[in-house]
Amino acid sequence: MELPLHSATPIEWGRAVLTDPLALLVDHAFLEKKAANNALELMTRWPADWVPGWVETMTGVARDEAAHLAQVTRLLVRRGGRMERIHKNPYANELRLLVRKGSAGEVVDRLLVSALIEARSCERFSVLAAASGDEELQTFYRALCSSELGHYKVFLRLAYKVAPKAGVEERWQRVLAEEARILEAQPPGPRIHSGVESAR
Amino acid sequence: MELPLHSATPIEWGRAVLTDPLALLVDHAFLEKKAANNALELMTRWPADWVPGWVETMTGVARDEAAHLAQVTRLLVRRGGRMERIHKNPYANELRLLVRKGSAGEVVDRLLVSALIEARSCERFSVLAAASGDEELQTFYRALCSSELGHYKVFLRLAYKVAPKAGVEERWQRVLAEEARILEAQPPGPRIHSGVESAR
Repeated sequence: MELPLHSATPIEWGRAVLTDPLALLVDHAFLEKKAANNALELMTRWPADWVPGWVETMTGVARDEAAHLAQVTRLLVRRGGRMERIHKNPYANELRLLVRKGSAGEVVDRLLVSALIEARSCERFSVLAAASGDEELQTFYRALCSSELGHYKVFLRLAYKVAPKAGVEERWQRVLAEEARILEAQPPGPRIHSGVESAR
Repeated sequence: MELPLHSATPIEWGRAVLTDPLALLVDHAFLEKKAANNALELMTRWPADWVPGWVETMTGVARDEAAHLAQVTRLLVRRGGRMERIHKNPYANELRLLVRKGSAGEVVDRLLVSALIEARSCERFSVLAAASGDEELQTFYRALCSSELGHYKVFLRLAYKVAPKAGVEERWQRVLAEEARILEAQPPGPRIHSGVESAR
């Protein structure tokens, strides 16, 4: 896969988190909800005025993520699980701390962090598809990986449209390095962006 | 149509607002965005724990509304319009003031107000379909009316699941009456929930 991530998730991570598939689906549902909200929020912000395709891109992402969310919760409920009300996502929160608020770089950073979460989710879904012995989950994770790959590319392309190339490239490398560090520091557990047991 | 609304929108309203179809689409996009956000918010609140189907219903509505949003913005941009950043919706805001915050009735009221906005949107879309001479818009508004009709029924059904029937029925009649009053007081203009010129 054409992902620029600075670390690779071993198959053992997938096997470990799939021992609690329902908790994984709950975490996953919150991830999709957050992604839908993020796209809806970006839709009416900043470069909507001057970047062609901004609004259509964001509404397209929101539509996809809301559809994934519906899919994930249906699967969860059908398998006997239930949603929780409150959810913590320290991985995404730490990534968002990298965003330079209030500066010209804010929109670039928001796009790069969005691209990165999509890219890492895609990588994790592909590991889950490989690690799962359940045909329905394999198909499900494979389809999601391919959709998130598309979103990753779209966010990254927009980042290069809103600012000069050299600055975006430098920032992207920085954010990629930080992401690998943040992910590695996460505790293990049945979450899409959890740490790898053996790496700790 | 099987709508319980306390006032009927005349075709003249449709003809008047369709004189500015792009402004109408901008307003409409914000309506869909708000509806998607509303469903995402309700998803993790209150009766998710004890009403079967709550989470799947809300995520299904969020998916539909996000898909409508993408459709509306594509149509808007293809027709040469552009989204705005800020939007006011006094109709929805006034309806939300009817919600009894912090009480046991809050969730019932949220559901009834959601049902009502869907029902009125459905009615308005059906008037727009009848008033428009543009085949694409006719098809578009007709399809949306049918989807919002489904959402209206779903929200109303949930309201009757979360509280005793008599209380919900009384509250529903009250909210229906208030809605007609609030709608009538809106200024006319190219918005889905605007007032009727001749009625003022």
